[in-house]
Amino acid sequence: MFKIRALVTALALIGSISVATAWETLPTTAPAPADNPTTEEKIELGKMLYHDPRLSSTGTVSCASCHNTMLGGEDNRPNSMGVNGQTGGRSAPTVWNSAFNAVQFWDGRAASLEAQAAGPVTNSIEMGMKSWDDVVARLKSIDGYGKAFEQAFGKDSISKDNATKAIAAYERTLITPHSPYDKYVAGDKAALTEQQVRGMNSVQELGCTSCHSGPAFNGPGMFQLFPVHSNPYFAAKYHFKNDKGLAEVTKKADDEHLWKVPTLRNIALTAPYFHNGAVKTLDEAVLVMAKLQLDKDLTKEQVADIVAFLNSLTGEFPKQNMPTLPATPGSTFN
Amino acid sequence: MFKIRALVTALALIGSISVATAWETLPTTAPAPADNPTTEEKIELGKMLYHDPRLSSTGTVSCASCHNTMLGGEDNRPNSMGVNGQTGGRSAPTVWNSAFNAVQFWDGRAASLEAQAAGPVTNSIEMGMKSWDDVVARLKSIDGYGKAFEQAFGKDSISKDNATKAIAAYERTLITPHSPYDKYVAGDKAALTEQQVRGMNSVQELGCTSCHSGPAFNGPGMFQLFPVHSNPYFAAKYHFKNDKGLAEVTKKADDEHLWKVPTLRNIALTAPYFHNGAVKTLDEAVLVMAKLQLDKDLTKEQVADIVAFLNSLTGEFPKQNMPTLPATPGSTFN
Repeated sequence: MFKIRALVTALALIGSISVATAWETLPTTAPAPADNPTTEEKIELGKMLYHDPRLSSTGTVSCASCHNTMLGGEDNRPNSMGVNGQTGGRSAPTVWNSAFNAVQFWDGRAASLEAQAAGPVTNSIEMGMKSWDDVVARLKSIDGYGKAFEQAFGKDSISKDNATKAIAAYERTLITPHSPYDKYVAGDKAALTEQQVRGMNSVQELGCTSCHSGPAFNGPGMFQLFPVHSNPYFAAKYHFKNDKGLAEVTKKADDEHLWKVPTLRNIALTAPYFHNGAVKTLDEAVLVMAKLQLDKDLTKEQVADIVAFLNSLTGEFPKQNMPTLPATPGSTFN
Repeated sequence: MFKIRALVTALALIGSISVATAWETLPTTAPAPADNPTTEEKIELGKMLYHDPRLSSTGTVSCASCHNTMLGGEDNRPNSMGVNGQTGGRSAPTVWNSAFNAVQFWDGRAASLEAQAAGPVTNSIEMGMKSWDDVVARLKSIDGYGKAFEQAFGKDSISKDNATKAIAAYERTLITPHSPYDKYVAGDKAALTEQQVRGMNSVQELGCTSCHSGPAFNGPGMFQLFPVHSNPYFAAKYHFKNDKGLAEVTKKADDEHLWKVPTLRNIALTAPYFHNGAVKTLDEAVLVMAKLQLDKDLTKEQVADIVAFLNSLTGEFPKQNMPTLPATPGSTFN
């Protein structure tokens, strides 16, 4: 099934076969895996953990530092800054609507939000904890967390597994429905401007929606090659191929430059663009994608139309209460 | 008046004159200066600015990074971590109840919250902006801020002066009343344990309240010498005198080792202690203060009583809505 889908998509890409797109609104709730049903207690605990800088070695970096829920779910940097001012090579993907990604991380190496949440905490240039045992020990030293975990998972339940489950449960609530696009699809024809409707038609006719399909415009979950086409100008300017994508993890030649299809939801808020954050504006990102994926040279008007449409994918951000984090009992970070 | 107060306090300190303390509850609102009356619009704008990491050169450090309102108003670190992982020599003071400080910063060099707010933004090791002109230019580039400033201050009003006024207006709402101590003073005699009442009497009898007086236990605003007494053991262990306090700013010998009297409110949440964050626990902080300021050697029981009392100064933290920050328009941080 996976191979068939990939093949169809590949054909659509190469030949720009125009398939009628089923425009879909964003669901207002996200499905949870069978072993981690969403509960209010998990969401509350997950929100605390997500915003707690004490999950990092220096006590300065939380999940929210790079995936900021007060903004577009990331940090507007080419690459994020972890503990002690260190930076990596990739741009932080948005946490908003990540519940609708079939796989997580740019290279799709995590199969779930739970698996994703475990990664950055012990990455030496991100949150820098030596091990999850250390994380668990620190959480156990903070009285208030014992209680919050107990409410979510039962007595003496502080563990890596439960911490990542709680964070994932919280992330499943980070959904931005009711964008102008959603309203338009739901029947409110005044929700989009004429230009936005032209852009909407363009992304279908050009073939963008071959990959960026479905309610979150992130496809049904297959990996995609990027860049498909070579272009010496963009290659010299943006160095996209310096990073081998999925192959950096699997070490397989077949996986070189394979990437998860990222969502287009709220993309107007998440500059800079691409896995290495090399492209500063949405206009340029659209131009680059059309050239490198579809071998199309867009006119200035086409770019403007598509960017206008992409701006209609900015949704409504749920109001959140700021969590109060349980107190540090006299311990410190050096 | 200032001199008389300082003299009285000095006498009280040296001779441990026991003055009956007027125990006062924390006000639930803070007075605002005549040129910056508090309004809802300023509070909302100030909350946004306070939590916006784009006020730093790297886009990673906000006021809240070091003065975290989800925690005890600081970062539980000996010294804070600014842009690019840099650290300074002093420990972040809590923002909670800072509205009741007569002067701001450890060395009291800012006379108001407004003046304080201007400092860290352009400090090279804190938020690292080159100038307030750069800050204002960046704020002007973010559409949503134009509107928020307009609502708070009128048309075309983005400026350093208004940004710091808004931040100060927000900070004046960060008050934590209704602690067990406040309830006790208000008449609820069951609000404190017997041990806490013993501790309360001790801080008065020992002379702590000579300086740590008033509703926020931070005195009427004079500077104090620290340490008053020499102690070779603590000197070798904590290096308090490496930092000359107010004299670092004024370069006057008379100002050496003069410090603002910090609040004791929520002190159980704000380890580590002292201007250099050298003392990890509240027990040790109490022991050190008694020895260095009052030349008293406390018993283990006295320390335990006083720490129990200090724990009763943890107040109620107001519920806050998380601000939604206006979007970055396609610009990025390198």
